[in-house]
Amino acid sequence: MEVGFLGLGIMGKAMSMNLLKNGFKVTVWNRTLSKCNELVEFGASIGETPAQVVKKCRLTIAMLSDPAAALSVVFDKDGVLEQIGSGKGYIDMSTVDPETSSKISQAITSTGGAFLEAPVSGSKQPAETGQLVILAAGDKGLYEESIPAFDVLGKKSFFLGQVGNGAKMKLVVNMIMGSMMNAFSEGLVLSERSGLNPHDLLDVLDLGGIANPMFRGKGPAMLKSNHSPAFPLKHQQKDMRLALALGDENAVSMPVAAAANESFKKARSMGLGDLDFSAVYEILKMTKD
Amino acid sequence: MEVGFLGLGIMGKAMSMNLLKNGFKVTVWNRTLSKCNELVEFGASIGETPAQVVKKCRLTIAMLSDPAAALSVVFDKDGVLEQIGSGKGYIDMSTVDPETSSKISQAITSTGGAFLEAPVSGSKQPAETGQLVILAAGDKGLYEESIPAFDVLGKKSFFLGQVGNGAKMKLVVNMIMGSMMNAFSEGLVLSERSGLNPHDLLDVLDLGGIANPMFRGKGPAMLKSNHSPAFPLKHQQKDMRLALALGDENAVSMPVAAAANESFKKARSMGLGDLDFSAVYEILKMTKD
Amino acid sequence: MEVGFLGLGIMGKAMSMNLLKNGFKVTVWNRTLSKCNELVEFGASIGETPAQVVKKCRLTIAMLSDPAAALSVVFDKDGVLEQIGSGKGYIDMSTVDPETSSKISQAITSTGGAFLEAPVSGSKQPAETGQLVILAAGDKGLYEESIPAFDVLGKKSFFLGQVGNGAKMKLVVNMIMGSMMNAFSEGLVLSERSGLNPHDLLDVLDLGGIANPMFRGKGPAMLKSNHSPAFPLKHQQKDMRLALALGDENAVSMPVAAAANESFKKARSMGLGDLDFSAVYEILKMTKD
Amino acid sequence: MEVGFLGLGIMGKAMSMNLLKNGFKVTVWNRTLSKCNELVEFGASIGETPAQVVKKCRLTIAMLSDPAAALSVVFDKDGVLEQIGSGKGYIDMSTVDPETSSKISQAITSTGGAFLEAPVSGSKQPAETGQLVILAAGDKGLYEESIPAFDVLGKKSFFLGQVGNGAKMKLVVNMIMGSMMNAFSEGLVLSERSGLNPHDLLDVLDLGGIANPMFRGKGPAMLKSNHSPAFPLKHQQKDMRLALALGDENAVSMPVAAAANESFKKARSMGLGDLDFSAVYEILKMTKD
Repeated sequence: MEVGFLGLGIMGKAMSMNLLKNGFKVTVWNRTLSKCNELVEFGASIGETPAQVVKKCRLTIAMLSDPAAALSVVFDKDGVLEQIGSGKGYIDMSTVDPETSSKISQAITSTGGAFLEAPVSGSKQPAETGQLVILAAGDKGLYEESIPAFDVLGKKSFFLGQVGNGAKMKLVVNMIMGSMMNAFSEGLVLSERSGLNPHDLLDVLDLGGIANPMFRGKGPAMLKSNHSPAFPLKHQQKDMRLALALGDENAVSMPVAAAANESFKKARSMGLGDLDFSAVYEILKMTKD
Repeated sequence: MEVGFLGLGIMGKAMSMNLLKNGFKVTVWNRTLSKCNELVEFGASIGETPAQVVKKCRLTIAMLSDPAAALSVVFDKDGVLEQIGSGKGYIDMSTVDPETSSKISQAITSTGGAFLEAPVSGSKQPAETGQLVILAAGDKGLYEESIPAFDVLGKKSFFLGQVGNGAKMKLVVNMIMGSMMNAFSEGLVLSERSGLNPHDLLDVLDLGGIANPMFRGKGPAMLKSNHSPAFPLKHQQKDMRLALALGDENAVSMPVAAAANESFKKARSMGLGDLDFSAVYEILKMTKD
Repeated sequence: MEVGFLGLGIMGKAMSMNLLKNGFKVTVWNRTLSKCNELVEFGASIGETPAQVVKKCRLTIAMLSDPAAALSVVFDKDGVLEQIGSGKGYIDMSTVDPETSSKISQAITSTGGAFLEAPVSGSKQPAETGQLVILAAGDKGLYEESIPAFDVLGKKSFFLGQVGNGAKMKLVVNMIMGSMMNAFSEGLVLSERSGLNPHDLLDVLDLGGIANPMFRGKGPAMLKSNHSPAFPLKHQQKDMRLALALGDENAVSMPVAAAANESFKKARSMGLGDLDFSAVYEILKMTKD
Repeated sequence: MEVGFLGLGIMGKAMSMNLLKNGFKVTVWNRTLSKCNELVEFGASIGETPAQVVKKCRLTIAMLSDPAAALSVVFDKDGVLEQIGSGKGYIDMSTVDPETSSKISQAITSTGGAFLEAPVSGSKQPAETGQLVILAAGDKGLYEESIPAFDVLGKKSFFLGQVGNGAKMKLVVNMIMGSMMNAFSEGLVLSERSGLNPHDLLDVLDLGGIANPMFRGKGPAMLKSNHSPAFPLKHQQKDMRLALALGDENAVSMPVAAAANESFKKARSMGLGDLDFSAVYEILKMTKD
C-alpha cells in the first residue's frame, strides 16, 4: 500500500518509519527537506512539496506541529489543495482545534476529495512502537480504507462520526489528564509538607483503585523536579483552555478543570511552559524558602 | 498465631474470616454479639467485652465504623484500656482522623501497651480476598510482630512512621481520588454535551496513560446513573475536607481539591450524600431539562 | 453640534434622547426603522441607512447589541464603510471584544476616517440620566472632539490609549463585578443556611468597608428571587469568558474569576441566562428541597 | 454609667477611651497592667484581675486578641467566672469562633450571669471614632442594657439572636470581603499585564456600581506593593477557613470563597501571612521575572 506523509517531527518521523518497516511505500515531505534523508535510507521517496505528494499518492497522511502548520500545508502555494480532488484522501493526524479541522475539511471536500481528521493519543514512544490510539472522524469510507495504516500506527482506532469529533475527544481526554496531574501534584506536595514520604505515597497509589501509568511513569521524576518535556505544559494548558471553551459553548460547568487550568497558567507565568506539564507540581510546591 | 478482633461490620467480618481461614486463632467481639456466631462456625472464640479479648490475646485488632466507635471501644467501661498494658499490642485498622488516632495512642502507650494505627485502602471485596493495602504507623516493633496477620489481610503493608501518618496517608490518597472522580465526571458530561459518545470516551481513556481501575469500574454504571454506594459521597466529602484542613495547617494551596470539594458539597446539598461518590456526576450533568 | 446615532435599543434610545434634550442635532438610524419615530418627536432626523447617517454627519456614534451587529453596521451593504473617510469620525460605544473593535478600527482608519471605541460602564438608568462612564480608546483627536457629547452622556470619560484598551478595561471591570456577585451570593446563601437573617447581612454589609451600590441595589430583590434583567447573566458570563481569555493570552492566573465563571455557566445550563446576572444566587441556593 | 473593660490592645484601648470621653466610669484591666496607666489619666480606675473588675461592675466588656485570650480571661484563676453571677452581665466583643463563644456563654449563664457576644466590624480607626458596627447575640435584656455603651462605641449595633450568630455574621462578612479582595487583585494584575494603566482601573471602578471604600482605600497602596497590615492576611485566611467550615456544616457549596481561600493559603506559604490581606495581590502578580 502506498501513502504520502507530510511532516517529519518527532511524531511524524516515528510514524512514517513504522509504515516503512511494515511494508508500506511512503512518499515523505517536510518543511526542512533534509529531515527526509534518514527515511530515504529506509526506502522512502521524497515529495518536493505537499502538492507533489498528494499528486503521487491516493492517500496522504499529515502530522504537523500546530494549527498554523496544518493550515499552511493545505492552503499555501504548492499545498495539498492544489492536487487533492475526487478519488484522493487526506488524513490529518495533527492535534488541532475543531475550527481548524473544520476549515481544512471544507476545503478538501469542496474539491471532491475525502477528508479524515485523526488526532492521536500517545506521544513519542507509542508512536515508535505503533501503540497510538487513533481518534478518527469525517469520511467513513476513507476511515475504512485507512485501516491497514491505522493498524500499523496504533493499537486501536476509533471512528467517532463527523469532523470535529476527533479533536473534541482528544480535548476531553487531555482535560481529564490535566486535572489529574494537578490532583496528583497537590497530593504529592501535601504528603511532603505534612511529614509523609512522597515515595510511600507513590507506592500506595500504585496498589489501589486509581493506579495508572501516568502517576507510575512521571511520579519519581517529579519528586526529583525532573520535568523533561514529553508533553509541554504550554500545550497542555492550551488544551485545557480549548476544552473549557468547548464546555462554554455547551454550558457545561467544569470547576475542577477550570481550577487546574489556572494552576497551569500560573506555571506558564513562572516560565515553566516549555517543561513537561508535570511542572505544575513546582507551582504547588513553591514556598518562600 | 492468636489474635483478638473487635468489630464485625462488613470489613471486620471479611478480615477476621480471612485470618481464620489462614490458620489464625481468632477471638472476636462485636457490639451486637450475635454477629459473632457465623465466625464461631469457622472456629472463632468469642470475647464478651473488648477488655476480655485484650486480656486473652497478646495482639488485638480493631476495625470499627467511625471515630466515635473507635473511641468507645477503648475508653468505655469494659473497654480495651482496662486490660491493655506492657506486653500487649493494639492495632486499630479503622479509618479515623489523626486526632482520634493520637488520643487512642496516648491512652494505650501510657499503660505500657504498644499501639499501631493501620487504616486500610480497599473496601469489601479486597477485604474478602486479602488484597487490602495497609497503612501502618506507630510502634515499629508491633508492626513487625503483626506482619504475619498483615500478610493475610493485605497485598501490601507500609510502615509510615509516627502515629497519625497512616491516617494522613489515607486522606491524601482519598483527596487525589476525589479530585479524579470530579475530573472524570466533568469529562463524561463534556463528552455527552458536545456530541460525543461517552462510551467511546471510556474506551479511549482505558487505552491511554491515565487508564485506571476506578474509571474502568465505575464509568459504565455512572453513565446509567447507577451510583450504588461502595464509598458514600458524604464520607468522600468528609475526607476531602479533612485533607484540605491538613493542607491548611501546612499552608499548602490545593485549588483543584478545593474545587472538587465544593462540587461534592453541592451534591450533598442536593441529597446525594448517601450514594456512591460517583454521584457528583449528577451535579455536573444537571440542566434545566 | 450635530451627530449621527446608530442603534436604538434600550441604551441607544436613552443616549440619543439625552443628546437631543441637551441641544444636539441628532440623525438616527435603527435596523427596525419604526423605532426612530419616538425620537423624531423630540427633534431627531432619520437616516435610512448607516451609510446615509455617516454621509450627513461629521461624527457618528453607534450603540449596538453585540459584535455581530457592530460588524454588520460597518461592513454590510449601505454600511458605515461606504461613506466614512477623511474628515469624519466614527465612535463605537457598543461593548465588543477587542478583536472586533480592532477589525472595525482597521477598516475605518484605512479609509482615512477617525475611529474611537468607547464602551460604557452603566446600564439603562445611568444611560437615561447621563451618568455613564465612558472608556474611550483610539484616535485622540476624535476623543477631544467628542468631549461635548461625552459630557452629556456620561459623568466621566477616560481616554485609555490604543484601540482595544476600552474593551479591555470594560472586561476587567465586569470580571471583578462578576466575581463580586458570586462572593455576595455565596455569603447570602451561607447566612440563610446557617440561621442568620440575610437582611441583617445586607444591613451589616452596607455599613462597612465593602459597602457598594450593587449589593445595596440588588440585594433585597435577590432575596425575593427577583432577577429582572438589568444585565443578563449570559452577557455577564460572556464577559467573564473574554476576560479569562485575556488573562490566558497574558499568562495571568485568576482562580477566583475562573470559579465565578463556572458558577455562571452552571446558571446558564439551568436556564437562567436571560435573567439578571444576580440569578447565580439561585444556583448557589439550590438544594434538593 | 459604670462599666468594666478587659483588654487594652489597639482596639480595647480606643474603645475604653471613647467610653471615658463620653462620660462613662470605666474600670480597666489588662494582662500587662502598665498599659492601664494612660487610661487612668483620663479617669479610669484599675482592676487588679478580671474577677475584681467583674466584682465591682454590673456590666463588663472584654476585647481580647484571640480565642485563647478570651477563654483565659474567663476560666483562669482570678478570672471572670469567679465573680460573675445573677445580676451581672458579661459582653465579649472579641472576634472568636462560634465554639469558643458558646463555651464562654455556657459557663457564664450557668452561674446565673447574662452573656452577650458582640464582635465588631471595623478596625483601629473606627474604634477611635466610635464608628464600629456591633454584631451582638445572646441575652436580649443585656443587649438592651448595653445600648448606651454601644451607641458610644459604634455607629450601629445589631441584635442577631442566639449566641454564635454574632461570630457567624462576622465570618460571612469577612468571607465576602476576602473573595472581593481576590477579585480586585486579579483585576489589577490583569489590567497591568494586558497593557492598561491600573490607576485608570481604580478610577473607573470608583465611578461605578461596585465602588466601595476598600477598593478606594487600599488600591493605590497595593499598586505600590505597600501592604502594611490593617488586617493581617493570616487572620483573613483563618476567617475564610472558618466560613468555609460553616458552609460545610450546612452543605453550602461556595466555589469562589474556596478559590479565594486557596490563594490566601498560597500567600501564607510564600511568607506573606503577617502583611495586610491585600498582599494576596503579590501572589497573583508573581511571574518569573
